[in-house]
Amino acid sequence: MLTLSQKAVKLPASPIRKLVPYAENAKKKGIEVYHLNIGQPDIDSPEEAINAVKNSNLKLVAYPHSAGNASYRKGLCGYYHKIGIDVTPDEMIVTTGGTEALQMALFVTCDPGDEVIVFEPFYTNYNAFAIENDIIFKPVTTTIENGFALPPMSEVEKKITPRTKGILICNPGNPTGTLYTKESLIELGEIAKKHGLFIYSDEVYREFCYTEDPHFSCMHLKGLEQNVILLDSVSKRYNLCGVRIGALVSKNKDVIAAVLKVAQARLCSPAYGQIAAEGALSAPQSYFDAVREEYIKRRDILVSSLNKMEGVKCPNPMGAFYAVAELPVDDADKFALWLLDSFQYNNKTVMITPASGFYATPGLGKNQVRIAYVLKENDLKAAMECLEHALKEYPGRTTK
Amino acid sequence: MLTLSQKAVKLPASPIRKLVPYAENAKKKGIEVYHLNIGQPDIDSPEEAINAVKNSNLKLVAYPHSAGNASYRKGLCGYYHKIGIDVTPDEMIVTTGGTEALQMALFVTCDPGDEVIVFEPFYTNYNAFAIENDIIFKPVTTTIENGFALPPMSEVEKKITPRTKGILICNPGNPTGTLYTKESLIELGEIAKKHGLFIYSDEVYREFCYTEDPHFSCMHLKGLEQNVILLDSVSKRYNLCGVRIGALVSKNKDVIAAVLKVAQARLCSPAYGQIAAEGALSAPQSYFDAVREEYIKRRDILVSSLNKMEGVKCPNPMGAFYAVAELPVDDADKFALWLLDSFQYNNKTVMITPASGFYATPGLGKNQVRIAYVLKENDLKAAMECLEHALKEYPGRTTK
Repeated sequence: MLTLSQKAVKLPASPIRKLVPYAENAKKKGIEVYHLNIGQPDIDSPEEAINAVKNSNLKLVAYPHSAGNASYRKGLCGYYHKIGIDVTPDEMIVTTGGTEALQMALFVTCDPGDEVIVFEPFYTNYNAFAIENDIIFKPVTTTIENGFALPPMSEVEKKITPRTKGILICNPGNPTGTLYTKESLIELGEIAKKHGLFIYSDEVYREFCYTEDPHFSCMHLKGLEQNVILLDSVSKRYNLCGVRIGALVSKNKDVIAAVLKVAQARLCSPAYGQIAAEGALSAPQSYFDAVREEYIKRRDILVSSLNKMEGVKCPNPMGAFYAVAELPVDDADKFALWLLDSFQYNNKTVMITPASGFYATPGLGKNQVRIAYVLKENDLKAAMECLEHALKEYPGRTTK
Repeated sequence: MLTLSQKAVKLPASPIRKLVPYAENAKKKGIEVYHLNIGQPDIDSPEEAINAVKNSNLKLVAYPHSAGNASYRKGLCGYYHKIGIDVTPDEMIVTTGGTEALQMALFVTCDPGDEVIVFEPFYTNYNAFAIENDIIFKPVTTTIENGFALPPMSEVEKKITPRTKGILICNPGNPTGTLYTKESLIELGEIAKKHGLFIYSDEVYREFCYTEDPHFSCMHLKGLEQNVILLDSVSKRYNLCGVRIGALVSKNKDVIAAVLKVAQARLCSPAYGQIAAEGALSAPQSYFDAVREEYIKRRDILVSSLNKMEGVKCPNPMGAFYAVAELPVDDADKFALWLLDSFQYNNKTVMITPASGFYATPGLGKNQVRIAYVLKENDLKAAMECLEHALKEYPGRTTK
């Protein structure tokens, strides 16, 4: 029978998928749509990356090494060394984006039916990787009141069963922008150590930290060297989303050996992407400083605008370029659709991502949205003005 | 417990993995090693592909569409149209290599425990994709005596059970170089139709056909439009292995819709790779003619040299750039190792791939090797001379 697999049927659609045709329709009607819904940075990639590709003198684009080009891995060690992570080229596998790094980490450590603890709200695509690997997510809820910080470890321990293989975190986080404190990560590390769990640490937004202290990585956790699997990517760090280059890094030799076998089966990560990523390693500190400054400015506009709106609540995110806000609406899915279908202000509207899709527990996040602040300052201000008017007009508003 | 998954443990190592350190050791001793073991073409990529990348004026390497760039998919339709495959951009998903195309096809159609019929010997990495998706391969053996042609369909029908979801073929084939006849494919299509099975048709070597007739694709099979899933790649076609661009093509809308969800979860295929692949679409016919002519010359040298050696049997492959040969040796794994470890002729030796790893049935292929003819003419001749001497000297030779 030509039927699809049950796994394929279970795969979640993107939370904005059903909104896309409405956005297209709004545009057809001449309405400008501000995209607050996607994490596609609008800042240029480093010219060092672009030029590395333009100046590459390949005549034959051959297979790179399955673990990644030796020169790139060596360069990557230099990058990690600067941020206090001492690793060797043998302790990393270059992957096709951070996505592949996480998929490989889950695959080599979890069998069907094994459990992984996640903190909700979390990046929706994690659900797809869980389904693909037949893994069961055990969500621990974080709250907007608490700025989506890690909850007390007793909440985590409650979820541990004999099938638990690890804890998946994203720090700073998508969708919340929350940066976990060093203290809370040390506590998390102690739990992982005590129960023999892996920590899958997705740190692709590492460069987007708005505190004075540098980012604290799970790779900095003492005594957790065998537990931690770092999932990384150049997509956000260098605004190189399209090159599809990430990395899986671990001091656990068994993990790396197993991941290498998976990597060999899919042959290699993209050659041009590795050239771009290696070039990006030479981007000057000023590149990151400028990006960071730009995002802090945007975040400040976003968060202050949101909190000035009646009935809106938004914690101040200390990382990434997302925020989750609570809105005075009956149903954020309906509201997001209404914005595109039935609203305009000065011929403009906004597209936002309903947050319910970021929760594993049914019913949560119903009045929350994720907002990505990847718009230029003036556009962001105009988008906020739109949103403010929309909230006043929306028929499903819950508070007066 | 920090243990690996059972699936990870089951993943096969590459058939040449244990040979690699011996090859490196031989090189250290100053011995030249002819690599007949890998399918890494040595012919330049089309300059149209290289130049497309060099002239790309990206400032920000953003995420391409999850299904692939619209312009590339449109161009790809033109390519398919020329070879008699009429498809639209909505009937294809651009993938990260042919590998991802096959993984996605298996994932969206097979649940754990489902069965797929394969013809052995087959491309070893297929085993990894089966393990990753918890699929059981049911091998149907093809024989060197029969040039590894498709066996009588009664052999295929014997393997069909209620769990069978499809039939996986590679045409022309890796590792055998065998090109299936139109007639045998029509018969295979009838079986698939009768039993409601998918045909996963890996045609990444389509351009490497050495018959007068053009390649017959499973996409040409009448009435099988809902059954056939084409797996394609630019790696071999344009000598662009490193760009990691493939495609999954099907007229089956449910399959495409499900694959799109998988594609969205991993975001996109590489941007630079898609630019290169789109550029390659403009490569002139002369490019393919020259490549084809070169490979025919090499194949002829290889096959005639092999068949002149006493006790060696090698069918004349009509496609790809591989051949499987039977050697007068006790154990091809031992022989391959001995070549690197204990043999040299004029300070030269050869590296070949033992064929046992290409079989799913234990014990088969023990005296067979795969030889990739990706060496320049003179090197190939020298490699054959080496092999001939080696077979005479090898202590485990089985015939005098």
